[in-house]
Amino acid sequence: MKAIHGGDIYRNRVKLDFSVNINPLGMPEEAVRAMRLAAGLCCRYPDPEAEELKKAVSVAYRLPAEWLLFGNGASELFLAAAHGLRPEKVLIPVPSFYGYEHAAKAAGSRIRWLELKRENGFRAGEELLSALTPDIGLLFLANPNNPTGALTENRLLAAVLERCQRQGIVVVLDECFIEFCGGGHSLLPALERFPNLCVIRAFTKIYAIPGVRLGWLACADDELRGRIAAQLPEWNLSCFAQAAGCACAGLEDYVERTRRIVRTERAFLKERLEGLGIRVFPGEADFLLLYAQRPLYEELLGRGILIRDCTSFRGLGKGFYRIAVKSRRENEILLQALREGKEAAPDSRKGEREWKD
Amino acid sequence: MKAIHGGDIYRNRVKLDFSVNINPLGMPEEAVRAMRLAAGLCCRYPDPEAEELKKAVSVAYRLPAEWLLFGNGASELFLAAAHGLRPEKVLIPVPSFYGYEHAAKAAGSRIRWLELKRENGFRAGEELLSALTPDIGLLFLANPNNPTGALTENRLLAAVLERCQRQGIVVVLDECFIEFCGGGHSLLPALERFPNLCVIRAFTKIYAIPGVRLGWLACADDELRGRIAAQLPEWNLSCFAQAAGCACAGLEDYVERTRRIVRTERAFLKERLEGLGIRVFPGEADFLLLYAQRPLYEELLGRGILIRDCTSFRGLGKGFYRIAVKSRRENEILLQALREGKEAAPDSRKGEREWKD
Repeated sequence: MKAIHGGDIYRNRVKLDFSVNINPLGMPEEAVRAMRLAAGLCCRYPDPEAEELKKAVSVAYRLPAEWLLFGNGASELFLAAAHGLRPEKVLIPVPSFYGYEHAAKAAGSRIRWLELKRENGFRAGEELLSALTPDIGLLFLANPNNPTGALTENRLLAAVLERCQRQGIVVVLDECFIEFCGGGHSLLPALERFPNLCVIRAFTKIYAIPGVRLGWLACADDELRGRIAAQLPEWNLSCFAQAAGCACAGLEDYVERTRRIVRTERAFLKERLEGLGIRVFPGEADFLLLYAQRPLYEELLGRGILIRDCTSFRGLGKGFYRIAVKSRRENEILLQALREGKEAAPDSRKGEREWKD
Repeated sequence: MKAIHGGDIYRNRVKLDFSVNINPLGMPEEAVRAMRLAAGLCCRYPDPEAEELKKAVSVAYRLPAEWLLFGNGASELFLAAAHGLRPEKVLIPVPSFYGYEHAAKAAGSRIRWLELKRENGFRAGEELLSALTPDIGLLFLANPNNPTGALTENRLLAAVLERCQRQGIVVVLDECFIEFCGGGHSLLPALERFPNLCVIRAFTKIYAIPGVRLGWLACADDELRGRIAAQLPEWNLSCFAQAAGCACAGLEDYVERTRRIVRTERAFLKERLEGLGIRVFPGEADFLLLYAQRPLYEELLGRGILIRDCTSFRGLGKGFYRIAVKSRRENEILLQALREGKEAAPDSRKGEREWKD
């Protein structure tokens, strides 16, 4: 798994971790308090029906409680969806999150990769529609995408849903980062009209609690949801996950504050990084995809900063990196380290344009 | 799930829960402390390789670290084993834990049930050997079994392993309750000789932390273990699970104390229950299987005590109940409630022999 995911602070000496994409505000105090309390209660089995959590999410996102399934992180739900459908062929646009490939392979499905175009900043375009051929059973799509942060246009998403519906393709739409973007992008409101749509969300990123493991899936179709539920282990949600979820769901101020900070800091980082000759891809999430010819990963790791080397992402390759958008103080440290790295670079590299389209 | 599992304290008014089988000593203080600390650290992803936990379990159980896989509870590992092997046919002796059926069905396997004999106290005998026909791909077996608490004889287990090895049957042996029994029953020492053996253990019961979700699997065969690992979601172990596991693994005094108390209290309960005309099946775990014609479940629930009605267990039926072995104080409350229930029963029932073989 080493080469596949960011965040390996366990086997690296790291003072700042820019490799994982979690809320720069850190955990809400309410969540920490709830989890400390839960520590004293986990001599009891967790509620297998997660009734309280289901109610909290249902209220916070204005969804019928019976449309919801919960998972030990979104990862478990991708796997359960693949197993529940066991489609012969799965379509995965790349670059994207490795978890979809992991899930499709676990279910024994064949995968068709759709290479998103570099010249469009890896944003999905009409080629996505043409790739939805009748042999596809399941489409994994992330909005915004990871590691690019690119949002897919609403108009295109609507066309994708229509076509998938007509062709009997199930759409698993990963919205784990959507709460970092402005409003109007989520397809939660489309669930009622599209029974073939499963929207997956996580508490991990937006509430900065990746150590807890909590994700959810919403789907309006009983039969489809039932097939996925049958693939989940019993008591898959810990007491901690249920407590943290109840504490976090509906913290609107915290989410609003997060959005403001992420927007400001993303713009700040973009401008400064470009000033250093680093290519920054347009993105709307709490992370940015970069391209540089300098070996940024090694440079920064030498200064105690971990970023995500994207060489292992299918559809990317050498020279691509992903960084989190963090607090101003942390972003300044990153930029300073990059400036120092640039100064220390061999003369031949200085001032070089680092991107060739 | 309501009818399938015990412990539904979330939808019943309960002051004492005898329906779940966890350590009557309660959580080790070390675990609670570790989990409280973890609450402050779950803004970080958990270690996907669970290195520290792996080392702790490896040392505590004298097993090579590379033989170990960890799961979000043993439940997740049953499911992963079934998916990893996807056997055409699975053998499940019953009555037993519902999780094996859940896992086999999730993997799309057909199930052959082996009905254990009531007259043997539902203890597996030679009929288990004859059921291991060449069409079976996977055997789920619990030792001790649940809900009976019966241990399978070592001699029979050895013969089962030999036959499965010869016939290419994978054995998933659930030892989640074995630490409540005396020594000498675990098949962990047999792993090296039998690459077709997977032993599954849980922290849930012996350390009384069912709210945390932590189980492990040991298997000496790289290929088999790899197939199972490929079915686990990424970051399936929360920070809490890893912290609690590290704190608990190797608490030998606590486990020894547990064994003594469970042995004493089990004998005490058995004697008193039989004195009340209730049939008690021989078992060596921290729970007892009972048979009575009186409606014990309703009687006790009316007094705020939840026990496990075993009507829904395949291979059992009406009149079977499972109770946990708890502390003397709690056991006395249960017995008192049963005495009162008996007094209040219609005259026609009093003194009746409740079991007919």
